[in-house]
Amino acid sequence: MSRIIGPSLPNIPWEEKPQAYASPVWRYSANPIIARDAIPSSNSVFNSATVPFRGKFAGVFRCDNRAVEMNLFAGFSEDGYSWKINHEPIVFQGDAEITKLQYRYDARVCQIENKYYITWCNGYHGPTIGVAWTEDFETFHQLENAFLPYNRNGVLFPRKINGKYAMLSRPSDRGHTPFGDMFYSESPDMEFWGHHRFVMAPKGGWQSTKIGAGPIPIETSEGWLLFYHGVLTSCNGFEYSFGAALLDLDKPWKVIYRTGPYLMAPHMLYERTGDTPNVVFPCAALVDAPSGRLAIYYGAADTVTGLAFTRVEDVIDFTKANSEV
Amino acid sequence: MSRIIGPSLPNIPWEEKPQAYASPVWRYSANPIIARDAIPSSNSVFNSATVPFRGKFAGVFRCDNRAVEMNLFAGFSEDGYSWKINHEPIVFQGDAEITKLQYRYDARVCQIENKYYITWCNGYHGPTIGVAWTEDFETFHQLENAFLPYNRNGVLFPRKINGKYAMLSRPSDRGHTPFGDMFYSESPDMEFWGHHRFVMAPKGGWQSTKIGAGPIPIETSEGWLLFYHGVLTSCNGFEYSFGAALLDLDKPWKVIYRTGPYLMAPHMLYERTGDTPNVVFPCAALVDAPSGRLAIYYGAADTVTGLAFTRVEDVIDFTKANSEV
Amino acid sequence: MSRIIGPSLPNIPWEEKPQAYASPVWRYSANPIIARDAIPSSNSVFNSATVPFRGKFAGVFRCDNRAVEMNLFAGFSEDGYSWKINHEPIVFQGDAEITKLQYRYDARVCQIENKYYITWCNGYHGPTIGVAWTEDFETFHQLENAFLPYNRNGVLFPRKINGKYAMLSRPSDRGHTPFGDMFYSESPDMEFWGHHRFVMAPKGGWQSTKIGAGPIPIETSEGWLLFYHGVLTSCNGFEYSFGAALLDLDKPWKVIYRTGPYLMAPHMLYERTGDTPNVVFPCAALVDAPSGRLAIYYGAADTVTGLAFTRVEDVIDFTKANSEV
Amino acid sequence: MSRIIGPSLPNIPWEEKPQAYASPVWRYSANPIIARDAIPSSNSVFNSATVPFRGKFAGVFRCDNRAVEMNLFAGFSEDGYSWKINHEPIVFQGDAEITKLQYRYDARVCQIENKYYITWCNGYHGPTIGVAWTEDFETFHQLENAFLPYNRNGVLFPRKINGKYAMLSRPSDRGHTPFGDMFYSESPDMEFWGHHRFVMAPKGGWQSTKIGAGPIPIETSEGWLLFYHGVLTSCNGFEYSFGAALLDLDKPWKVIYRTGPYLMAPHMLYERTGDTPNVVFPCAALVDAPSGRLAIYYGAADTVTGLAFTRVEDVIDFTKANSEV
Amino acid sequence: MSRIIGPSLPNIPWEEKPQAYASPVWRYSANPIIARDAIPSSNSVFNSATVPFRGKFAGVFRCDNRAVEMNLFAGFSEDGYSWKINHEPIVFQGDAEITKLQYRYDARVCQIENKYYITWCNGYHGPTIGVAWTEDFETFHQLENAFLPYNRNGVLFPRKINGKYAMLSRPSDRGHTPFGDMFYSESPDMEFWGHHRFVMAPKGGWQSTKIGAGPIPIETSEGWLLFYHGVLTSCNGFEYSFGAALLDLDKPWKVIYRTGPYLMAPHMLYERTGDTPNVVFPCAALVDAPSGRLAIYYGAADTVTGLAFTRVEDVIDFTKANSEV
Amino acid sequence: MSRIIGPSLPNIPWEEKPQAYASPVWRYSANPIIARDAIPSSNSVFNSATVPFRGKFAGVFRCDNRAVEMNLFAGFSEDGYSWKINHEPIVFQGDAEITKLQYRYDARVCQIENKYYITWCNGYHGPTIGVAWTEDFETFHQLENAFLPYNRNGVLFPRKINGKYAMLSRPSDRGHTPFGDMFYSESPDMEFWGHHRFVMAPKGGWQSTKIGAGPIPIETSEGWLLFYHGVLTSCNGFEYSFGAALLDLDKPWKVIYRTGPYLMAPHMLYERTGDTPNVVFPCAALVDAPSGRLAIYYGAADTVTGLAFTRVEDVIDFTKANSEV
Repeated sequence: MSRIIGPSLPNIPWEEKPQAYASPVWRYSANPIIARDAIPSSNSVFNSATVPFRGKFAGVFRCDNRAVEMNLFAGFSEDGYSWKINHEPIVFQGDAEITKLQYRYDARVCQIENKYYITWCNGYHGPTIGVAWTEDFETFHQLENAFLPYNRNGVLFPRKINGKYAMLSRPSDRGHTPFGDMFYSESPDMEFWGHHRFVMAPKGGWQSTKIGAGPIPIETSEGWLLFYHGVLTSCNGFEYSFGAALLDLDKPWKVIYRTGPYLMAPHMLYERTGDTPNVVFPCAALVDAPSGRLAIYYGAADTVTGLAFTRVEDVIDFTKANSEV
Repeated sequence: MSRIIGPSLPNIPWEEKPQAYASPVWRYSANPIIARDAIPSSNSVFNSATVPFRGKFAGVFRCDNRAVEMNLFAGFSEDGYSWKINHEPIVFQGDAEITKLQYRYDARVCQIENKYYITWCNGYHGPTIGVAWTEDFETFHQLENAFLPYNRNGVLFPRKINGKYAMLSRPSDRGHTPFGDMFYSESPDMEFWGHHRFVMAPKGGWQSTKIGAGPIPIETSEGWLLFYHGVLTSCNGFEYSFGAALLDLDKPWKVIYRTGPYLMAPHMLYERTGDTPNVVFPCAALVDAPSGRLAIYYGAADTVTGLAFTRVEDVIDFTKANSEV
Repeated sequence: MSRIIGPSLPNIPWEEKPQAYASPVWRYSANPIIARDAIPSSNSVFNSATVPFRGKFAGVFRCDNRAVEMNLFAGFSEDGYSWKINHEPIVFQGDAEITKLQYRYDARVCQIENKYYITWCNGYHGPTIGVAWTEDFETFHQLENAFLPYNRNGVLFPRKINGKYAMLSRPSDRGHTPFGDMFYSESPDMEFWGHHRFVMAPKGGWQSTKIGAGPIPIETSEGWLLFYHGVLTSCNGFEYSFGAALLDLDKPWKVIYRTGPYLMAPHMLYERTGDTPNVVFPCAALVDAPSGRLAIYYGAADTVTGLAFTRVEDVIDFTKANSEV
Repeated sequence: MSRIIGPSLPNIPWEEKPQAYASPVWRYSANPIIARDAIPSSNSVFNSATVPFRGKFAGVFRCDNRAVEMNLFAGFSEDGYSWKINHEPIVFQGDAEITKLQYRYDARVCQIENKYYITWCNGYHGPTIGVAWTEDFETFHQLENAFLPYNRNGVLFPRKINGKYAMLSRPSDRGHTPFGDMFYSESPDMEFWGHHRFVMAPKGGWQSTKIGAGPIPIETSEGWLLFYHGVLTSCNGFEYSFGAALLDLDKPWKVIYRTGPYLMAPHMLYERTGDTPNVVFPCAALVDAPSGRLAIYYGAADTVTGLAFTRVEDVIDFTKANSEV
Repeated sequence: MSRIIGPSLPNIPWEEKPQAYASPVWRYSANPIIARDAIPSSNSVFNSATVPFRGKFAGVFRCDNRAVEMNLFAGFSEDGYSWKINHEPIVFQGDAEITKLQYRYDARVCQIENKYYITWCNGYHGPTIGVAWTEDFETFHQLENAFLPYNRNGVLFPRKINGKYAMLSRPSDRGHTPFGDMFYSESPDMEFWGHHRFVMAPKGGWQSTKIGAGPIPIETSEGWLLFYHGVLTSCNGFEYSFGAALLDLDKPWKVIYRTGPYLMAPHMLYERTGDTPNVVFPCAALVDAPSGRLAIYYGAADTVTGLAFTRVEDVIDFTKANSEV
Repeated sequence: MSRIIGPSLPNIPWEEKPQAYASPVWRYSANPIIARDAIPSSNSVFNSATVPFRGKFAGVFRCDNRAVEMNLFAGFSEDGYSWKINHEPIVFQGDAEITKLQYRYDARVCQIENKYYITWCNGYHGPTIGVAWTEDFETFHQLENAFLPYNRNGVLFPRKINGKYAMLSRPSDRGHTPFGDMFYSESPDMEFWGHHRFVMAPKGGWQSTKIGAGPIPIETSEGWLLFYHGVLTSCNGFEYSFGAALLDLDKPWKVIYRTGPYLMAPHMLYERTGDTPNVVFPCAALVDAPSGRLAIYYGAADTVTGLAFTRVEDVIDFTKANSEV
């Protein structure tokens, strides 16, 4: 049976699947958990990342302000549902050329050993992948951008693979990119990156325009479990849903299974309407290894933040049973 | 007075017009009648066609699955409101080259003599018009595609005209076509088609981008009553509404009257929000000739199916009174 | 302290700011005040202008009909909330070449001395700025179009400046223009226009695609208070919000302050959904000089009309404190 | 050895291949053979078709006039090099709806038994395939358009196949179509068409944007020899070259061989510069079966007409040896 | 018989029409008359305007420098063929806001009484119509821009009409505008402009994308003779040709005749190749009224300047005989 | 005085500047030096790189074949003018995933110590920068791609800087990218790359759309001398010219000087016409340090290869005197 390789998280936010609910992923009944105006300056709070931290929870949040400028904010929670987000954005330490703010959005947080690494879409003469680390969510040390522009959705693996740090990303263009494959890259030192490998491309339906990694991949007995978003282009623009894939543990650029159907698509009014209608966009998952429980944080309609749940065996079974690699 | 030429349908779904409602077409009060997830695999059920069948009702339904792949399913109803849709898609019999599934959507069903002909947007190296027939909604015999790609919204007339089968269609391109005129074609045998005639083009306002035939044209004392959709391009994409036209009985490519205003536009939340916001798209109409009652089935927001009602004299009077041919 | 230069309007529509509401502009609690189908022929009523008139209120309303043709209608109100809009559009007197109707929309009304001047987007071989005046909202005298096509959002100043009539406008293209700076022009006689000056261009975030003047500029002790809309282009199209600027009293093309954050963005369901999702678009403001109260009329989702309130000192303080000139 | 199935044409225009010339197709040394202003009204003469006629030659020529309106003209030649083109365009007899001139261009001429059939891109509410026949190149009888719009490059086969007339065509859109596959259609009577089959799609390089049939397919012992144009999109627009394919004699939608490299690309100054730079576009080939000689007429730069030569065994050998089906 | 209303210019550059040349406009045999690198800094010299001046000739030239920045230079000629162009651009006197150089191109020069007015495409936050005057081609006085952006091809009439200065122009967008109608405007004082009237729109063929006025209109007994350019969009971009129209003398926005065919299109290698292939673009015409001789200066391929000739009776006869108003 | 830091190359191809030629760069009088069909399979030979090799010259050539597939070929020359290019493309040794041929073009060759490194635009699920080395131009060892797609114009520096290998590149998109800034990247080992720094962006005129590094930067007493191409977008597509910049020796991402005017633009017929009209594209420069002589190899019209000359002091003086950093 599929199982997660990792620590326990007994205080994971959790709600059982509703009766007679057929899909392997279900929403929290009190969604959205973070409102548009969760902090005084915010226009929207979405596409944000959470991690277990000192027995509770911490996170890095995308709070667009009311000028609709994109920036990252640290936040903390006792229970994973209710979040206190700092009112001031993160100030990154580091090389002045690199830390100069253009825009920052869509963060992921990845614990590797005793550091929390943050990756995000970082404006440096175009969107690229910013990288920083913190130990306390108070002081953040920014490293070199991982790649040249234009890139988005850089997502680290939670341990070195073959002795190297590893990252997924989605090379892009300057605008609302109408294409997007997923690639894998390695680094000996979190500074220089290479050994770039193609992972997978869009397919039909909900994932026909572009795809990008979501939460930090979850190590399981079956491979790396990766949730990823996919985009369909209707006559009225983009629609974002998400599915899952299983990647080879040692060669994560090899896709073993990949969901044909989506796991979740925008169906609720708070996902259907907002600054960008029809978006569900997962950026983090909390994991309780012993029980196989997963709590997924996702942005809804580029406006608010929702929570969804699944069990690892369910999602892996579904992925295997509906795979279209 | 305008009257329908055709059989009676005393069990037509029906609800009287609300008091003080001004427009000639009104919605069913319990819309939508078919939910997004009406069958276990469905992401959405819309743009579907119904017919009287053995004293009850049958239909062909567009059920996009959760991979957002488009396919057609047979369904049945006792009352025209509540539908049992098969969980497996229609399997078409016929030439292997033609029946090979790429995608199928937006079916219409047209009874001609004792056969039910289905036409739909059929993927064959691009969208074109698929044609099939059934006598029992169990076995479906697929014929040759009527036209070369790229085409959509192929709609048959319910009897031969001038000794030929007749079809309306809307030549298209490969994508979310930003243009679209309606044409008329004839066939001696449902296999070879020709004598193509221009019918009508977009006009201003709600029908300024493209237009396409909706339900099977209804024979009336005033001409063929055709409901058709029209598309307006706002700065946020396409908006689909529908109106009506009266076509010459013998030369149906000649438009006698055509509504300036729409008959119905997306105003309800289930029409305003969904996979494609702002869509009402009629694909079928049940007709009770003696009473002049019409029940129109339409897709809403490319997600669910709604029902609307009108009376033939009202809609013809409105069309004549507001004609802008 | 900032104060308005102008007459009192004790019967201004007004509702106090909700408790604990942080932003300087707040919505009327019973919005929208004008429904989509406020008159029998209307598909939508929005982007409309109101003025004090003979102790009560009058206005010019954009009512798109159900053919989705755009035209202007006079309307009257006792209280500024409840409006009686004429069922027939305004008939303009004047040169036949100029008064010929192509389309008319997005009117503003500006009292200068004892005349009410209407400016609007006027179809004359492309969109340009129509100009007319009335004394009674019954007879309207149309003047020459102010500019060559292609232009939109022509907004007069409420008095001559440096001995000339003055107008803001936003040169455009033929379609859903993806750019838009604001310019200032002068006229000795409301017939010939010149001395065109650049005022301001789009900036980041909510105002990054284009900007355009909203209500008639309000003379204050700090300069002309101008509410203006700004547009952001998401992957699903345009989103319209609004902010404010203070312009030099004598050289109104010089911007003294300009809001970085928006004052209001589409957050309510009636602003999020409609014929154009995600639009708030202000076209008029009633002003009570002694109290500094302002009542702003704005179109919502290109479908209905809403009302919002602010106080001049609040909005000027906010603009100064958050200025990004 | 490959051989042509057909009559002899001893007076075929002919020039031997230059010494040390490597490619299987070579140009006439006195190209272009028809000048831009070959008739008094013409801006350009190109994309035209020739046939043996009464021991000499006749043809249908695309002569755009100096308003750059596209129309067809009959022409005659003693030797195939020097052409006398009528100064007045062809007047087609037939149904008034169909013969009404919108635009006509890119004709092919196909002898089937004792009639010469002309097919061309015919403006009928969009480009489609016009069909007509003549016996004398003086009186032309126009039939129904073969297909619905939008289509171009309709090319008949020179005999019935499986008892049906057969045509290749390239479904298109309304403009400078950026895609284009080749399809095969059948007709019992030259009036109704069906049994549409996909033939082939663009591939890389010179044929990566779209492809379309050129001259009438030539029956050979190896299959139908089809010359076809291919288009590459550079950063400066389209470039038209041509290659060849061998199609199954009985099922011509089955491609047996297809040239990877082009046979000819625009290299001469009269092909590089003109109203459309970088175009060679073949529309006709004269054939001498016993000797295997072929004379290809092609439009150059959408401005003039050139002549090229090849031998059937050479071109078939080359096609087989460089096939990339 | 048609005749020019104006002064004599016995020293007009002139070359008789070649024998057997059919078109009413013919090229100078030694074209181009001004080379790409006519001054040390120039990349190209084209779209330039000339006038009789003190018994000889003067002009304003568009010389793009080798940074490909566009600016205007004065120049002088003894004979109209050989030009000495100043090596430094024109410095305009006037309001600092208006005279600040962004870019300047495509000048026309119009003598009205004893002043020479220059109009050009002037960069002021977008292209608009700059206006200046000189008496000596040494000191240039810049006035206000005539219109708001975006506009090009502003061309003055050589005398007041109905007591007002009059100008033709072509409202545009910010880029390589894909549309363009011609409009007429009036001014009492060369400062404020109004009374804007639509003149004409593109038609088919060579003038199907956009049209714009060329040289200063020439007063004739038949109306204002206007040469204007027209643009056709091929799959490889724009092609510029030119034709003529006759406008009503008193209401110049009324078109009396308009050439269906072009008068001249790019046929020579120096018109076919250059920085913009396939351009002939007339900006000036010298006129000898008694003889009816005209010498037209035109830019070729956006690179060099050519000269062409015609006689007024020929061009008016041709325009009348081939009119498609 | 400016001088080159590097070895002598007494046998550099060389021709003195023509009398009275004003620009600092001049063409070889017998251009083009490599014809379109220099090898039997080639459609075009351009955008190629040369280096001194064993007392003579070697190079890597872009030879598109007649299928217009892009690949790289080694070639050799005694004198730098006349080249023998291998008839078979280079076979790269290395990781099968990376060496698999999709397409290869626009190579540069950079000698670092005793190895010759080749960088090129390498198809790996999109264009990126391929890297390989050879010692003998017979065996080529391919390394990992330097970057993720989408990238073009990767150009190495000829020595380590600050202990790291250094490369310039131009991040791109998937198509005919309409933007393009130049960036600088470092690598400790030619395998992993990072420390990405913005160098410069497009400016006006000839370099307004995108810019990219050309030949290997040349170390001089004034900084790294970089020739780079720039692109202007006319209404007929892209035009490629080239200029020069001086980069800081230790921080090469800092631009000290940059030419406002181009050094060379497409003016000759072989640069004006070809598969892509209006292109000069330099990829290599031979350098004789003692004399300051430079021989630049450039692709012309994406069809043939030309040679141009300059002297280092002239080009540096020109760059300084005309700098627009």
